[in-house]
Order: sequence, then C-alpha cells, then structure tokens
Amino acid sequence: MSLDAVLARIDDTLPQATERLFDLLRIPSISTDPAHAGDCARAADWLAADLRSLGFDASPRPTPGHPMVVGHAGTGPGPHLLFYGHYDVQPVDPLDLWHRAPFDPELQPGPRGPVIRARGSSDDKGQLMTFIEAMRAWKHVHGSLPARLTVFLEGEEESGSPSLVPFLRDNRTELTADLAMICDTGLFQDTAPAIVTMLRGLLGEEITLKAATKDLHSGMFGGAAANPLTVLSRILGRLHDATGRISIPGFYDDVDELPDAVRAQWQALAFDHAGFLGGVGLTTPFGEQDRTPLEMLWSRPTAEVNGIWGGYTGAGFKTVLPAEAHAKVSFRLVSRQDPVKLREAFRAWVRAQLPPDMTADFTPHGASPAGQMDITHPAFETARAALAAEWGRPAAYVGCGGSIPIAGYFKSELGMDAMLLGFGRDDDQIHSPNEKYDLECFHKGIRSWARILHALTT
Amino acid sequence: MSLDAVLARIDDTLPQATERLFDLLRIPSISTDPAHAGDCARAADWLAADLRSLGFDASPRPTPGHPMVVGHAGTGPGPHLLFYGHYDVQPVDPLDLWHRAPFDPELQPGPRGPVIRARGSSDDKGQLMTFIEAMRAWKHVHGSLPARLTVFLEGEEESGSPSLVPFLRDNRTELTADLAMICDTGLFQDTAPAIVTMLRGLLGEEITLKAATKDLHSGMFGGAAANPLTVLSRILGRLHDATGRISIPGFYDDVDELPDAVRAQWQALAFDHAGFLGGVGLTTPFGEQDRTPLEMLWSRPTAEVNGIWGGYTGAGFKTVLPAEAHAKVSFRLVSRQDPVKLREAFRAWVRAQLPPDMTADFTPHGASPAGQMDITHPAFETARAALAAEWGRPAAYVGCGGSIPIAGYFKSELGMDAMLLGFGRDDDQIHSPNEKYDLECFHKGIRSWARILHALTT
Repeated sequence: MSLDAVLARIDDTLPQATERLFDLLRIPSISTDPAHAGDCARAADWLAADLRSLGFDASPRPTPGHPMVVGHAGTGPGPHLLFYGHYDVQPVDPLDLWHRAPFDPELQPGPRGPVIRARGSSDDKGQLMTFIEAMRAWKHVHGSLPARLTVFLEGEEESGSPSLVPFLRDNRTELTADLAMICDTGLFQDTAPAIVTMLRGLLGEEITLKAATKDLHSGMFGGAAANPLTVLSRILGRLHDATGRISIPGFYDDVDELPDAVRAQWQALAFDHAGFLGGVGLTTPFGEQDRTPLEMLWSRPTAEVNGIWGGYTGAGFKTVLPAEAHAKVSFRLVSRQDPVKLREAFRAWVRAQLPPDMTADFTPHGASPAGQMDITHPAFETARAALAAEWGRPAAYVGCGGSIPIAGYFKSELGMDAMLLGFGRDDDQIHSPNEKYDLECFHKGIRSWARILHALTT
Repeated sequence: MSLDAVLARIDDTLPQATERLFDLLRIPSISTDPAHAGDCARAADWLAADLRSLGFDASPRPTPGHPMVVGHAGTGPGPHLLFYGHYDVQPVDPLDLWHRAPFDPELQPGPRGPVIRARGSSDDKGQLMTFIEAMRAWKHVHGSLPARLTVFLEGEEESGSPSLVPFLRDNRTELTADLAMICDTGLFQDTAPAIVTMLRGLLGEEITLKAATKDLHSGMFGGAAANPLTVLSRILGRLHDATGRISIPGFYDDVDELPDAVRAQWQALAFDHAGFLGGVGLTTPFGEQDRTPLEMLWSRPTAEVNGIWGGYTGAGFKTVLPAEAHAKVSFRLVSRQDPVKLREAFRAWVRAQLPPDMTADFTPHGASPAGQMDITHPAFETARAALAAEWGRPAAYVGCGGSIPIAGYFKSELGMDAMLLGFGRDDDQIHSPNEKYDLECFHKGIRSWARILHALTT
C-alpha cells in the first residue's frame, strides 16, 4: 500500500478537511450544561453520518447521558485498532474574554501560521478529526481501509464520563480491539511528537455548607451566628500545609516516588520551566516546594478549588450572612491513589472541621485513578518511529498532568492496552477563552495518523 | 393640643395608611443596583409629593447618587425636630426563596396578627411612614403641625451612603435641628419599646485576587500554578483565630471593654439567647468564645465574608484554575475603632499573605465609626415615657449590632444629637427573603410618634 499517495491526498484536501472540522465546531456540544444536551446529540449524529460516508457501520448509541458514537469498518491481516476521541467541549465562560463567538470557527493568522479558533478546536474535535481525515484519505487512495478499525467517540469526557464504564461493560465484545489509540493529548514543548505514558487521575467534589435556616443580617447576627462563607474559606484554606502538601490525612499513602530511570528521562527532556509559567504571566512555581514544576504536573497529586460561590456577589454591597456556601474542589491523583477511598477521606476531613449547627452536603463529580501505559507493547516503538518520520524529531515518552480516564478503563474493563498521542500545543488555551488549534497541527496530525496506520498494518 | 383625637384618627385611618405604604413598597428602590436608579428616583418623588400634601415645602434633592428628600413644615414654641429614614431597600436575591414577589405587598395572616409582606416593609419604608402618618393625623385633627419639623429621607442607606456626608456639609444650616429622630431600629425582644444608645460602625471591602493572565486548565497547570481561589480561601480562613478573635494586627487596639454599669443594665434585660439563635435554626453561639451573644452583637467587632465568587459555578464541573477570585468582606466596628485606619490594616494584612505572582485589588464599600448616643439629653426620658404609655411596658436603652452611620454623622457634621427608635421585630427578615412588618408595629409605631410629638412639643 502506498503511503505517499495518501499523504499527497491529505495535503491536497486540507481546505476541505478544515471546512468539515468547522461544521463540527459550530455545534455547541457543552456536555456539562443540560441546556446543551440537544447539541451533544447533534454532534453525535454529525459524526456517525460522517463515518458512514467512509463506509463505517456507525451510529449514535444512547446512554443515560449523551450518546456514544460507535462505528466499524475494514478488514485485513493487521491488528484490530480502536480509535477514541470525544466530541463534547468545555463551557465557554467567561464569554466576555472571547474575541470571537466560541462556536463560530475561523482561520486566523498566528505567530506560527494559521490557527483554527473555536471552542473544541484542540480539545478534542480537531484532534479526533485528524484520525477520521487520515482514514478518509486512505479510503480515497486505496478504496478500502488497511485493517479492521473501530471508532469510539464519547460525549461526556468534559463532564466526568458517567456513562462510560457501564457502556464499556455492556459492549465489551464489540469494543475490545488489539490496541486503542487515544487522541486527546499534545506535542512536547510544542515541537516534538509525544506519547503519554503516565496520566493523573481525577476526583471531583461539590460541597454545600449550611447553617441558619435563612440568610441573616450581619448587623443583627454578625459575630454570634456561624457564617458558612467564613467556615468554607477556613476549611478550603487548610487544604494545603505551609510546604504546599495536601493536609488530608492519608492523602499521600499510595503516592509512589518517581523511579530513578523515569526521573532521568524527564530531566533529559530539558523542560522549559520558566517558559511554561512565563507563558501565562507567572514567575514562581506554587505547590510543593521541593519538586520541579514538571514533576508536580506529571507525577504529584493536587487539590484545587475550581469554583466557589455564596452570599451577595452583585454590584455594590450587601451585609448578609448567607445560609449556604458552595465550592467545587478537584484532586489530581497519581500512582495507586484510590479515588473512592480519597473521596471519603476528603468528606470526613471536611466534616471534622464543621462547627456546631453547620452541615456539609457533597455531590460527586467524577472519580478516576491515575494511568500507566504498557510501553513494552511493540506498537509503541512502531508509532514512535512513524511520528519521528513526520515531525523530523524523536517522539518523547512523557507524562500528562491531565486526566484521561478512558485509558485506565480500556485496561480495567476490556483488558485492552492504549496509546495516547495527540498534536495539541501548550498555548491552545483548552478550557479557556479563545481556544485554538494550529492548522499545522491539524495537517501534520492527519499525516501522522496515516503514517501510523501504515506502519502498524503493512 | 389633644392627643386622644390624634390617636383616634390614627386608629380610624389605618387601612388608608396601609394602602399608602403599599404604594411606596411597590417601587423597587434597590440602591446598590444601578439598574434600579430610576426606581430610587421614583420613590423619592413619591415621598416628596406625599410630604407636600401635608403642607411641607418638600422636594427630591439631586446627589451624585440617589436623591435625598428634604421637607420643612410647622412652627411652634417647641424644639425643631428632624426626622430621618431611608427609602432605599436591600437587593432581593435569592429570589426563589420568596413566597411572593418582593415588590407586590400584601397583608398576610401571621402568628401575632396580620403582617405587611414586601421588601422594605420593615427596613425602612414601613418605619419611615410611621412618622409621616403620625404627622398626617396630627395635621388632620389640629390643622397644623405642633413644632418646626424637618423630614430628611435618604436613598443610599443600603449601599454605603456615599452622598450623605457631602450633602450634610453642603446643607448644614438647613438640616441642623435641635434633635434628630431616626426610625430604623426595632423593639427589644419583640415586645418592649427600645431606644438605641450604642451602634456598631461598618467597614466594607471588596477584594479581587489575580494571578495568571487567563484561566488555566488544572490538568495542565494544577499544582505548579498559583490558584487565586485557594489563596483567597486561605486568607479569609485566617480572618479569625481559634478563639474567634479577629487576626488582623491592631484590630482590637481601640475596642473598649463594656462599662460595668452598662453590662449590668444589659444583663437585667434577660435577653433570650437560646430563642434568638433558635429562631434561625441555630443552637450554639459562634464568634468569641468568652462573650455572650448579646455582648457580641452590641459591643464587639466582627469580620464577616458577605460574598465570595470565582471559577466555575454552573451546573456540572470544570477543572479550571481561574485567573481571578473575588470576595466582599465587612467589619462591624465598636468603641473608638477608626474605619480608615482599619481599612489600611486589613489591606496590608491581605497583601502580606500573597504568594509571588499574585496581586490584590481593593474596592471600598462604606466606612463609618461606631456611635454612642448622649442620653443625658432631656428628650430621651420624655420619649421613653411616651413609648411606655403606648406599649404598656418600660422602654429599654439597648445596643444595636447594625450600623446606622447617620447618627454619628449628625453629631460629627452638624453637632446634632440623635435618638434612634423604631418598631421592627427580630423576625422581620430584613435583608432576607420574605421581609415583613407587623401591622401592629406599623399601627402602634404611628401612635408612638404621635405620643412623642405631643410629649416633646406641648
């Protein structure tokens, strides 16, 4: 099978591929917001239809939440490969910081060439379309796909994946391939292709503290009545000790120190710590004072307040003692940390700090353990070589500070190994206003998948 | 002059007086919200017109904020009395906790008789109308008012009174009477008439913490990048030490211990501490552990978080490290505490706790010292006797946990003593959803003013 003709086809049809991505980006598939449930369904329909146009037996599959898209196509002597991506996107607030409507994609000039500007352009619609466009070019050139291929696209990745594990269990046979390819990560320091071998887990909790039966006037009650905002601040303010370590008892019990070999490999990557923080206006690492930022991001757990609200937050002032205070808190987990155990430890730690008359209610938001990929699988070195051929530099084995629980679930639920690689850049502003995806990343990402498909199946 | 005929007229026309109050309550004059500036102006116009109908030379007076209403009427050998109230009201959020639209007043049955339900019914439209209705009845019976009377109504009391001091200075001669009567307080324990002799001051601050130049993804940056929400929680969580005292250096320097005589007088009031907290679902006093709730409310300073917000607060979850975190914090002040000095102390204390790369911006919201009334003024004992005659029990000299800075400004700017008395009840839910004013309080409040007018001027 000729690879060069496929790569040429990809180069020739980049404008059309970009237009198709724009169509997908126009659908505001924000999974965490119930108001956008219909948009999530529309995105799933769009993708299933696009896969069918490539000869896939593809359809949206209902779940209690947003639909999954599953499609199968191809035959061949090579391995059965499953490709995973997610079509849902993060919310867009604060909307006033966007320079253009988040769901009105546009090619804009950028310092490194054109960028595709829209929510989801990098996370993850642009990335999932790299694989689909690679298959489209392959099909056009060769008339058929090079191996048995399954595409599996999720619509709840940005909202804790509540339907994922039940769906994997209910469709185990159909979804178990020889290897999963997950496209939801980035390049290393913007230029080197990278395969992620360590992922942090995630635990999310929403807290509501309640005291009096109603909002109180701070003149009538202030000083004598417990204020949930004061108590919430006190508790969250104790999440870290003076050295930056998390204060919850037992939190570090299952955190392993980095093996010396991995530490040496990471040091060899010569990560630009100053540039990493400087890119967002910071100079000084926060967190554990005896760790480098790269070590903190890839191998250390975190506790972060992601949202807090309560009392009067409008214009002017109101001297209220509110009846309730709220926060969203998340933990990034590493090594063998058990999210179920730590959720209970966190709740017990909060409850132990409540004064009389105050109660705490908790709402869970996602719980996934950290992931460790098996890089002894031969496909890893094959893919590394294919990536090096496209990008002109060696592919790095890296860690990832984010949480992509699907890799762990593929292993735990289906016994399937996974390889995580993607083409995002650090300045893509995923989860932030003005998200973008470099056209170069989209283009070379499509070419990368064509090379990997070729290397793994011929 | 006959008092009995005035009281009879008040009794006979209570329904009409209630209807007039309803007209005023229908105007949503929320002074802190710029969207309601027009409503504040409408309330001022309504009051000026009503005063003119009583023969007052009255008009709304423009300020840089909401208008003041000033009116003059009457002559007589008695003292020149100034009456103060405020026509602005608190915001109404959370709106979903109201059982009826907040600006659609209604008489509803209550456990102690009918209640007037609406935002502002008790604080302070219902209260200010007690005085106006007393004058209306007096005028009807006698054809003229019993003394030289000035009415001075403010529209910024709930939003820090930014225009008040400049207005007093610019209109010093016109507004200086022999004694000011301020109707913005309540009964003692719901049954005994009360004259407030100590008021707490108020200092309001809004804080904004900023770190990175944009919202960050907690997977990409969590652990290594400073999170303004975490730092804000930490700082606010340290506002009080383990004994409930405020941690800002020097905060208690100008706080006097209560004189033994006052402490004894307050103890004699036999305040129902359990009932006070129990009424709002609480059992245990918060705050300074070596003080009684009454002492805390009337004579001790406080630090309270009145609002906090930042990050993702919508449905679901978003693992964001926000670029900004916000809080509104207020302090109730006592004795000789200087709000200007303490504002600087608070800001310095916050800034000293900021980690590298984080900045704090502050917006001031009101600053007034505590007030101490001069009860040696002979009008105090006269009013006490008049109140006792109406309510059938002695009037108490009490403290007030709230801040009514006007009393201090009358003294400091105009050299005018003030007497604070009013007819609110503890369960009026001022500043909270479902605010009410008992019809009995409105009725007996009008009668009380008629008695006081009579006692002071004849």
